[in-house]
Amino acid sequence: MLSNTPPPPYYAVIFSSLRTKNDDNYAETNAHMNQLALKQDGFLGMEDASSDIGISISYWRDLVAIKTWKENLAHKDAQEKGRQLWYQHYKVRIAIVEREYEFLKK
Amino acid sequence: MLSNTPPPPYYAVIFSSLRTKNDDNYAETNAHMNQLALKQDGFLGMEDASSDIGISISYWRDLVAIKTWKENLAHKDAQEKGRQLWYQHYKVRIAIVEREYEFLKK
Repeated sequence: MLSNTPPPPYYAVIFSSLRTKNDDNYAETNAHMNQLALKQDGFLGMEDASSDIGISISYWRDLVAIKTWKENLAHKDAQEKGRQLWYQHYKVRIAIVEREYEFLKK
Repeated sequence: MLSNTPPPPYYAVIFSSLRTKNDDNYAETNAHMNQLALKQDGFLGMEDASSDIGISISYWRDLVAIKTWKENLAHKDAQEKGRQLWYQHYKVRIAIVEREYEFLKK
């Protein structure tokens, strides 16, 4: 599903990644982190897809909400495992969404 | 591959979509548009992935480059076909990337 974000401005954290071949606990941890993220104050939604690369975008009210989630202890532990086990390369881009529009087929 | 974007600030156009079941000419048009986009002045890179939803992010130097590409005639034609044939729902979010960092496994 596409995220039903509020009118801009709000923030997007774009996480683009190339995985290793190591799948140990990846799916479980990823599902757990997604569950945990949506309980965070200021969380507005998440969209993800993966084929050759993975793209996961989370939407947030402000930079404080992003920082608080980045420093969440369970999330920090998952980030560390990500660097040790699951990711060959990743980029995190923090962006302010200024404008959005949509098309919905009738 | 992850896009090798320059130091921020620069723009991201986040295109999140749900497809219809109609695949007529979709892959060809998509490949052609990607080829055309990378020839545009101010184009900085593109990342895409698809599973339940599709996410395609293009990176741009400024809003003028984004607007010029949006109004490119071949691209406008593809956008129209997208609404008629290929997409059930899409959202376009235009965002300024303020900060980025990366991890690369040694």
